[in-house]
Amino acid sequence: MIKKLLVANRGEIAVRIIRACKELGVESVAVYSQADRNALHVQLADEAYCIGPTASKDSYLNFTNIMSVATSTGCDAIHPGYGFLAENSDFAELCRECNITFVGPTPEAITKMGTKDIARETMREAGVPIVPGSTGIVESVEDGMSIAKDIGYPVIIKATAGGGGKGIRVARTEQELVKGITITQQEAATAFGNPGVYIEKYIEDFRHVEIQVLADTHGNVIHLGERDCSIQRRLQKLIEETPSPALNEETRTKMGDAAVKAAQAVGYTGAGTVEFIFDYRENKFYFMEMNTRIQVEHPVTEMVTGVDLIQEQIKVANGEHLPLKQEEVTFNGWAIECRINAENPEKNFMPSAGTIEMYLPPGGYGVRVDSAAYPGYTIPPYYDSMIAKLIVHAPTREEAIERMKRALSEFVIEGVATTIPFHLKLLNHEQFVGGEFNTKFLELHDVMNS
Amino acid sequence: MIKKLLVANRGEIAVRIIRACKELGVESVAVYSQADRNALHVQLADEAYCIGPTASKDSYLNFTNIMSVATSTGCDAIHPGYGFLAENSDFAELCRECNITFVGPTPEAITKMGTKDIARETMREAGVPIVPGSTGIVESVEDGMSIAKDIGYPVIIKATAGGGGKGIRVARTEQELVKGITITQQEAATAFGNPGVYIEKYIEDFRHVEIQVLADTHGNVIHLGERDCSIQRRLQKLIEETPSPALNEETRTKMGDAAVKAAQAVGYTGAGTVEFIFDYRENKFYFMEMNTRIQVEHPVTEMVTGVDLIQEQIKVANGEHLPLKQEEVTFNGWAIECRINAENPEKNFMPSAGTIEMYLPPGGYGVRVDSAAYPGYTIPPYYDSMIAKLIVHAPTREEAIERMKRALSEFVIEGVATTIPFHLKLLNHEQFVGGEFNTKFLELHDVMNS
Repeated sequence: MIKKLLVANRGEIAVRIIRACKELGVESVAVYSQADRNALHVQLADEAYCIGPTASKDSYLNFTNIMSVATSTGCDAIHPGYGFLAENSDFAELCRECNITFVGPTPEAITKMGTKDIARETMREAGVPIVPGSTGIVESVEDGMSIAKDIGYPVIIKATAGGGGKGIRVARTEQELVKGITITQQEAATAFGNPGVYIEKYIEDFRHVEIQVLADTHGNVIHLGERDCSIQRRLQKLIEETPSPALNEETRTKMGDAAVKAAQAVGYTGAGTVEFIFDYRENKFYFMEMNTRIQVEHPVTEMVTGVDLIQEQIKVANGEHLPLKQEEVTFNGWAIECRINAENPEKNFMPSAGTIEMYLPPGGYGVRVDSAAYPGYTIPPYYDSMIAKLIVHAPTREEAIERMKRALSEFVIEGVATTIPFHLKLLNHEQFVGGEFNTKFLELHDVMNS
Repeated sequence: MIKKLLVANRGEIAVRIIRACKELGVESVAVYSQADRNALHVQLADEAYCIGPTASKDSYLNFTNIMSVATSTGCDAIHPGYGFLAENSDFAELCRECNITFVGPTPEAITKMGTKDIARETMREAGVPIVPGSTGIVESVEDGMSIAKDIGYPVIIKATAGGGGKGIRVARTEQELVKGITITQQEAATAFGNPGVYIEKYIEDFRHVEIQVLADTHGNVIHLGERDCSIQRRLQKLIEETPSPALNEETRTKMGDAAVKAAQAVGYTGAGTVEFIFDYRENKFYFMEMNTRIQVEHPVTEMVTGVDLIQEQIKVANGEHLPLKQEEVTFNGWAIECRINAENPEKNFMPSAGTIEMYLPPGGYGVRVDSAAYPGYTIPPYYDSMIAKLIVHAPTREEAIERMKRALSEFVIEGVATTIPFHLKLLNHEQFVGGEFNTKFLELHDVMNS
């Protein structure tokens, strides 16, 4: 049984994990960089240790220092949160070697899902819909041309080792394809040390719909419904909701089943998310990738299912069985999350680090705030800009939107610019309210001037 | 349809009502005494007007000033909250005369339930269990002696116009009864202008269990389950929960049915609470009184039923039908509320007015805070001492207790003493955790030194 857990992260997710530990009676150990000396997660944990200087590579990514805190303080588990070491199979492997429970999937599952062409082939074999394209790596430019001819243009060329929007190129003609394969291979060789690329049909307009899965170490896998995360700015999600306004019951069931198959195909354990490209015009979906960790937007799923995902991660890592069967999962109402970032939406979302002079989160019925901010907190400029997640829950989407507007309007954060004004504009935007948007929404609409 | 609503209250309940208005698209008008100039409800409402000096009788109880703000600002409704004018039938009557919707029951229903012997007789006729005792007012000392002989000692003598613990006296012998009737009559004549007293069997050890009811103007009445409010200090509730750890399914159903009958018997409309004396040794319950208003502890019911009681009050006042039928009401998990008062539990709960220097409410999953506090807020010493309600929701009582302890432990309120340390002690008390307590619990246990 896990008795003492090291939280290898910072910010709101570190606070979230510490809270779950307290509720489960698990001791918590925080780690922090020199820039995070006064961070809330440091104050809330039972113990806290500095693991290095400001730069992430020297602190939150520093295997040695993190592991030495874990072993010297007698931790029997490490929760990586999201980002940093969460999807680092080497770190998961190191935990295994040190006999410390990594709260997450096996290194093997992380690797399988983290290598794009392998993930794609694994999904194909498991019967999970994938975007039409090459089988594995493209052997040559000629091979690529033949595949593109089969599936039709436009196509997308992707480096198998790429990620985060890098090593990706769209080709609309054969000429662009020929050039694109060569350039992407060269770039990938330089950037990732792996020149392998593959080709997929490029779906222009789609919604980002993902499925939360939860698996135990006894072979049980369930899904907890979808999240619609189509509102993105430069691939960064800004607002998430569940259910998705775009799915019908049949597609929802199929997508859920596909996600469970995907998890089973890699022997997944713990909480994970299978992301899908949802081609709403054709009512078809395709595997995009699997995030082998907890996600920022997990709270909306918690609100409608009543399942505490972080507690369940820890319980599953403990060897416990899932708390419920698929047919026992119920979905109750509508939940929306707004990511409140310290960015100025009036100035092209320029980061706005500084000191929060006044801070008063909204409260009342159906409102949840997950944050590591407090009055007087100075936001360090070195990490991500998210300062709070505001989550609301209500019986219907319409009521959830009204509740979110109410909560946003009373959220007091003074001293830094935030994305609150952006969210208020978005929630009043006719198309958002109508549920009609895809991942290009923010490219196509100047929300701040709407 | 209600378009603009005046909130005739202050503190967290005024904030709660303003939030509901915003979510419903109803304009809100706050009123405030001179002492509440900087109060949060004043800041959150669409409009705010000073209605008089500090003393409640000159401001929050001032019919004329409140009504003149309502009429001059074009309000079509007034929500009284709890306390102040909430159970004042004259004020409800005045609203009716001014053609302003009083968000609450009719003046007739308020009067019937507010006059204790009439309420008792009405309940008897409706078949709601009442404590054995006199039928109506005791005619004479001899009449009282004969009744007491029938029902057996100890008995309790109550002034029909009494309330709040005043005009009440226990008699354990005939001698005490004779003396008690005379003294209580004299006291009641002086204090309430009505010397009428009645007699009931005195139940020594009981739990305070109450049922939330909701009724529309079309004759529909439902109940939303019980709340156990047995943890009281000098008749003030400190912690409330739902469900009650003491009720079995059969008693729960019977009590719910009785509460619906009680409401029907007075033609009740809106949200109300029927309080019962629950004799847990005998598994019997008796009508105590009905609170013809929203209660402080309403959020725990909202958490487990998903029904927004304040929104429903407004909708019902609007003439809308109840949102669900009795058989559609579902109860999900366990909810607990702790009242955080500005009182020093180390010093016999002495009030601790002053300025809140630092304020950071807890957040995360399953945590709700209803409060009018903020960093820098100066608590005026003139009104009640409650500064926040902390409500948690979890699948089981055990998990709810752990979540509450976690939330209490991270609640930062600096500058004034609060009851947070008391709640933490209580939640660790073996008998509280075991669910074994009655209304004498705090008399019998020195929780702060446990």
